[in-house]
Amino acid sequence: MEPMNGNDLLSRRRQALAPAYELFYDEPIHIVRGEGVWLFDADGRRYLDCYNNVPSVGHCHPRVVEAIATQARLLNTHTRYLHEKVIELGERLGAKFSEKLSACWFVCTGTEANDLATQIARTVTGHYGMVVSEGSYHGNSDLVLKLSTSSYPAKDRPDWLAAATAPDTYRGPYRAGSEPGGEEALAERYADSVAEGVAGLADRGYQPAAMLVDSSWDDNGLFVPPKGYLARAASIVRAAGGLFIADEVQAGYCRLGDTWWGHERYDVVPDIVVLGKPMGGGHPVAAVVSTPEIAAAFGEKMDYFNTFGGNPVAAAAALAVLDVIDEEGLLENAGEVGRHLERGFAELANEHPIIGDVRGSGLFWGIDLVSDRESRQPLDRAAAKHIVSAICREGVLMGLMGSHGNVLKMRPPLLFGRDNADHALEVIDACLKRHAS
Amino acid sequence: MEPMNGNDLLSRRRQALAPAYELFYDEPIHIVRGEGVWLFDADGRRYLDCYNNVPSVGHCHPRVVEAIATQARLLNTHTRYLHEKVIELGERLGAKFSEKLSACWFVCTGTEANDLATQIARTVTGHYGMVVSEGSYHGNSDLVLKLSTSSYPAKDRPDWLAAATAPDTYRGPYRAGSEPGGEEALAERYADSVAEGVAGLADRGYQPAAMLVDSSWDDNGLFVPPKGYLARAASIVRAAGGLFIADEVQAGYCRLGDTWWGHERYDVVPDIVVLGKPMGGGHPVAAVVSTPEIAAAFGEKMDYFNTFGGNPVAAAAALAVLDVIDEEGLLENAGEVGRHLERGFAELANEHPIIGDVRGSGLFWGIDLVSDRESRQPLDRAAAKHIVSAICREGVLMGLMGSHGNVLKMRPPLLFGRDNADHALEVIDACLKRHAS
Repeated sequence: MEPMNGNDLLSRRRQALAPAYELFYDEPIHIVRGEGVWLFDADGRRYLDCYNNVPSVGHCHPRVVEAIATQARLLNTHTRYLHEKVIELGERLGAKFSEKLSACWFVCTGTEANDLATQIARTVTGHYGMVVSEGSYHGNSDLVLKLSTSSYPAKDRPDWLAAATAPDTYRGPYRAGSEPGGEEALAERYADSVAEGVAGLADRGYQPAAMLVDSSWDDNGLFVPPKGYLARAASIVRAAGGLFIADEVQAGYCRLGDTWWGHERYDVVPDIVVLGKPMGGGHPVAAVVSTPEIAAAFGEKMDYFNTFGGNPVAAAAALAVLDVIDEEGLLENAGEVGRHLERGFAELANEHPIIGDVRGSGLFWGIDLVSDRESRQPLDRAAAKHIVSAICREGVLMGLMGSHGNVLKMRPPLLFGRDNADHALEVIDACLKRHAS
Repeated sequence: MEPMNGNDLLSRRRQALAPAYELFYDEPIHIVRGEGVWLFDADGRRYLDCYNNVPSVGHCHPRVVEAIATQARLLNTHTRYLHEKVIELGERLGAKFSEKLSACWFVCTGTEANDLATQIARTVTGHYGMVVSEGSYHGNSDLVLKLSTSSYPAKDRPDWLAAATAPDTYRGPYRAGSEPGGEEALAERYADSVAEGVAGLADRGYQPAAMLVDSSWDDNGLFVPPKGYLARAASIVRAAGGLFIADEVQAGYCRLGDTWWGHERYDVVPDIVVLGKPMGGGHPVAAVVSTPEIAAAFGEKMDYFNTFGGNPVAAAAALAVLDVIDEEGLLENAGEVGRHLERGFAELANEHPIIGDVRGSGLFWGIDLVSDRESRQPLDRAAAKHIVSAICREGVLMGLMGSHGNVLKMRPPLLFGRDNADHALEVIDACLKRHAS
């Protein structure tokens, strides 16, 4: 088949798809094939994928493709009939968590999972209030969009919602190195904001059903909270009768290196965990995992059924992803290549005053671009977009994040190697040099 | 692999899956393989599938399986890059509707689609009220569950919601044959309830954003509304500044025979259409379709992105389903076999006083079981469950629906043939005879 002309596609797309859909980069790219860490456009041009976390075991991993194809040929029904695969998936996922967490619900998207997790917390606690982080994103259903303070208009924020200050120790109100008492004091300052949020809810007549936290503060711009913050935040909410929900859609599945889940890094066992994006290697599958007690309490009051959630093909895809991560040692790879990247970013930051901060671990990094290092003034949105588009033209795909849209986002498939890391670092280096000149 | 013992699976399932998940039938079945209209259990036993509408082109249709496998091997990203398939899908879906409806959003589930459609209606109209039918189901996100009057507790119903009396001309307040003025008068009576709902919203300070209607009233027990009802209902809501949303998750995709969409039967062009279940032949894909004007008005105020929605594999699956329906003449088949079933059900109803009413068309039928034909008293829930389980033991899979759980649901894949229909009718006949004796 003749590859389509990109401009024709753009105009056809404008006709057929609603305009709410936004394309990446100044010049949208027309990708037709993927393999491992590589994507290829219609002209045969190769791009190093430093952005996509959904194909976390690599684009078109043969094991995942085969699992999907084999199961799709055999059977694809739903959870109203008995089927081994969804049960095996529940068992194997449960084994990846603290033993308290073992009851699974399967859904199709992170949005559905966060929506359900919130419904569970409200049903089980009998409370209606919710606490989230300022500037975070959890999905786009009506409910979950309201919980997504990065996207929902602040003026329309419901009165049952409290947004705690996100633990941004670089640009937030309490900064690393500037707080007497060190990290512990920082953790306390940010946790105070959770307590204020809970108190504000009480003033408005609400008790908290839960605090919902993205364990990587991805949309915020990727924060690494001060040690002790998350455990403090959870205990404040629990003392007020609420649950602690870890949104692991971004941070989970080995993304941060060395631990399977983001929350494991912060000495807290959530009451409910939400999983999504990388779970099926591209297949739409997501999950909520909780304790048997919470699952039973919810089950007494509510039925739940999701037509496609946990169907045999979704389960087969998700099982293949678990196999690949374990057998190919991708958790260890994320940790090792992460440390390699950390050294590389430190060198880049020495070279380029435009880099104000580099945050992250494993295979999830944010390069915070500034117009002035002293004031930490974020680089303006258009300039950041220009840089990420220039990096794309050099064949490396990255994204932008953060409330100022100034943080370069690196979040490649988990099989990303040292050589890929070096390649990306070189391209970023060259593009920042060119930007500076 | 040795097939698992059903009892072992049940106990493992209780451990690994949250108890909110309900299994079908008195004795759950353990299905391992599907082909066309047939499902096979772990003991090799064959069941005629008269229930599943998701695999509407048949279980494991080779064309759909091949499309999924081929695209999964090649590329599976998202709509932030240009890709032909999602555009082609939007174009081909648009061509199935009135020419006014051409702008598509792709999501993963009917729940996500109804949630988004409601957000669109509220954003575009600036109104917050919603009108639905009493006893209907649209999905299970926090918002959509509130719109699902069959499932959400009536005492917790939000004040922005109005539930109009569903057009049940068999057991509702206005009945076929008993209303002077015939069908037109019936349509008027039921439409009056929509007007009352809108007036009630106004009393509580709300204007309607939209009326959301399942064009088959599936969960209600499958109603065929009196001629003119839907057009009247839509014009009442539009006169109050609201939109008309047709939920075609159940009724669409040729289900009712002779027309692609349920709303086409009722001389009304919706402002927004919601698609789901059968769209990807089992793959999680769903859509919202609207006018370019509504899409533009929403796009001005809101971004929308769905990670898996309309990805290349989802688009490939959905395109293959469109191909199969057209090439195998499944729309025509649904109409023809539907008329054959209609005759068969008429004979069954003559034989069995337990059948109070038979409603439907195409390949969607409800057999309303009663304990007394005169009073139209629904058969009790447990007895109906006993009958559907007996039919299952005879190798035919059906379901139950309706607010009394007394309506046998027949909703087989669209390639269901006359021979399959005869087979199902014989089994139903035998089971009802045994029940009566």
